[in-house]
Amino acid sequence: MEISILTIGNELLNGSTLNTNASWIGKSLTKLGCQIKKQITVKDNKGDVENALNTLLINNPSYVIITGGLGSTSDDITRDIIFNYVGVKKNFDKEYWLKLSQYFKNSGKNNFDFIKNQAYIPSSGKIIPNPSGSARGFNFNFKKSKIIVLPGVPSEMKKMMTDSIIPDISSLIKNKYYSKKLRTTGIPESFITANIKDEVLIDDNCSIGYYPSAYGVDLTISGYSLKKVKNLSVKIETTLKKNIYSKNDDSLEKVVVGVGIKMDKTLAVAESCTGGLLGSRITEVEGSSAFFKGGVVSYSNESKIDILGVKRSTLKSFGAVSTQVAAEMAERIRKLFSVDYGISITGIAGPSGGTESKPVGLVHIGLSSKLNTVVKKFIFSTSRSQIKIKTSQAALNILRLELVYGR
Amino acid sequence: MEISILTIGNELLNGSTLNTNASWIGKSLTKLGCQIKKQITVKDNKGDVENALNTLLINNPSYVIITGGLGSTSDDITRDIIFNYVGVKKNFDKEYWLKLSQYFKNSGKNNFDFIKNQAYIPSSGKIIPNPSGSARGFNFNFKKSKIIVLPGVPSEMKKMMTDSIIPDISSLIKNKYYSKKLRTTGIPESFITANIKDEVLIDDNCSIGYYPSAYGVDLTISGYSLKKVKNLSVKIETTLKKNIYSKNDDSLEKVVVGVGIKMDKTLAVAESCTGGLLGSRITEVEGSSAFFKGGVVSYSNESKIDILGVKRSTLKSFGAVSTQVAAEMAERIRKLFSVDYGISITGIAGPSGGTESKPVGLVHIGLSSKLNTVVKKFIFSTSRSQIKIKTSQAALNILRLELVYGR
Repeated sequence: MEISILTIGNELLNGSTLNTNASWIGKSLTKLGCQIKKQITVKDNKGDVENALNTLLINNPSYVIITGGLGSTSDDITRDIIFNYVGVKKNFDKEYWLKLSQYFKNSGKNNFDFIKNQAYIPSSGKIIPNPSGSARGFNFNFKKSKIIVLPGVPSEMKKMMTDSIIPDISSLIKNKYYSKKLRTTGIPESFITANIKDEVLIDDNCSIGYYPSAYGVDLTISGYSLKKVKNLSVKIETTLKKNIYSKNDDSLEKVVVGVGIKMDKTLAVAESCTGGLLGSRITEVEGSSAFFKGGVVSYSNESKIDILGVKRSTLKSFGAVSTQVAAEMAERIRKLFSVDYGISITGIAGPSGGTESKPVGLVHIGLSSKLNTVVKKFIFSTSRSQIKIKTSQAALNILRLELVYGR
Repeated sequence: MEISILTIGNELLNGSTLNTNASWIGKSLTKLGCQIKKQITVKDNKGDVENALNTLLINNPSYVIITGGLGSTSDDITRDIIFNYVGVKKNFDKEYWLKLSQYFKNSGKNNFDFIKNQAYIPSSGKIIPNPSGSARGFNFNFKKSKIIVLPGVPSEMKKMMTDSIIPDISSLIKNKYYSKKLRTTGIPESFITANIKDEVLIDDNCSIGYYPSAYGVDLTISGYSLKKVKNLSVKIETTLKKNIYSKNDDSLEKVVVGVGIKMDKTLAVAESCTGGLLGSRITEVEGSSAFFKGGVVSYSNESKIDILGVKRSTLKSFGAVSTQVAAEMAERIRKLFSVDYGISITGIAGPSGGTESKPVGLVHIGLSSKLNTVVKKFIFSTSRSQIKIKTSQAALNILRLELVYGR
């Protein structure tokens, strides 16, 4: 099934807002087996919206999904433009307006006439309820396509897609397209492609996509035969083994927290150059408090000594970014929090502070358990922010390998 | 000057990769005074790319900027498609190929024939050098427009835009368009629009854009008269006063760290529900170590007692998420790190753990100085992740108000 996407809003064109809506819709519908044919972004402008719709409708896609411009400010004119384009009249929904008014009165607001436009409905077509906002959506049959209109607020759009549109589309797909995701970290893309080339040639009915980022390389295996997709996935899993941390969309922190809780273990972290990022990522996971007990961000040498209890002599002899200090930090944080595992991070996030022997991007990561303490050394690039992400990912991966494989 | 953007790549349509290129180009050129007319994303497919170009070229924009599909894999076919579209021949650049080959040989690689396509150049048009990669770009005159072709790798594209394209465009702009950004936090969009409505009516030659997010509401004041843009900005600044934290693109953490360093102050943080996010955001700022000394992530009650030194009786009487515990955490972290300011955060990030009297999203933020300790209470929504961001933003804002205005 072919889908096209139209996102409306000057904030998307001028770069004030990243177009996460187009990306989310693309991802959700690709998963179902849809092909996203084309995506256009235009301003809140009648002529531009109409031209874009003409372009998107040329090859009669099954759906054109439109987001944005259903709000209550003067530049929210999508409703009028689309009603006019599909040729329906604008009726005032008194009942909805009464409900809206009541809601605003109850919230203690008096002046809410500006929201009146949200009570207008088309003379034909379906209304898509908005459980988390006041701007409802619309569903029109137009020539051989369906035109869906949704608000641009991401949380509202996602809820409406999930509740009202995705089930419809899913039920209409005949030729299901299957996709499997494998998430890897700790190996470069070139290593992956070099190792799985032959498999691709054998399963020529499947396609493999590679998506590298600071978190690692994600692979997507897709095709119309579920069996072939599964077979190829298994082959790739056999090749990449422990480097695969997730066979679905799960983040590395979600995987690690899940395993940690299952094994009834506990964790604390001592972070230097990541400044709290590792803890923040772990606590993105619901229920992580059963596993993660906390940590110390020791951004200064003094705090490494005073709060963590790293020996002043170790710091003096080897410097803050060293195997020795990382080892002491990991042990100390484990004991301080009385947990099963202590992770430590010490490094140089840059852009200044590097030397020839200790360049920007040099990071030591320690992992301490009751049995032993191990430190690994990395050199990451490029920006401060990227180095922080790569460091937190490497730390989580070290912990995953320990928990799942005993390293 | 009108600009249109064409981003090529299936990974953008299927949501594997966020289209940050379109956003970055949009932002960079809007700043110069360009109007981004339209943005289209299509697959690596001849027909789709050609149709998109036809659409984008209709109103003769000054520039069409194309990114993606110049790499070395089989789906990188942009070069051939565009050469054919603008009607130029494909020549092999022996000299460049020699240079490329030498580079790969020196890197110890033997098999690099797959990269040969990157040595093809057009029989007319300009070549855009790529200082950080092997895929060079192209610059064609086509009808009344210029067509610019760049690789999709964001770092390469940005460098080439900055070095070769932005200076050209900048020099061509006659009617400069001015834009001023004001970043606010702590006040809802509805409050802002209600308060500055009159100003807009007076300065009808300027437009105001509102961009709400979890970080606050950004305002952009734009127009062709620098004087009018400046006047309107000043009026809005007078209205919104302390709620404005930045008059450029700076993040709140950058502003706070900047002021903190200037005032020669130091900071430590005690985080519970944010799990390290506040520290991580502060340490995104280069040079933050002069101001930020570290913190404790006390994700468990025990760590609040054992490491921070919160009284067990306080925790027992009032619960972890309370004014009293927040106050003790802020004081304790300040003393523990011997710093000027201690910030504490304790709250319920959800989705579980809420009660009727202490719902999900309830957060207490404490700020302790040598003079006193103040705690503020907030109720944030919606997701765990959003609550964490809003909490860290509120904490930074409390600190900013203290540093800049003495609250």
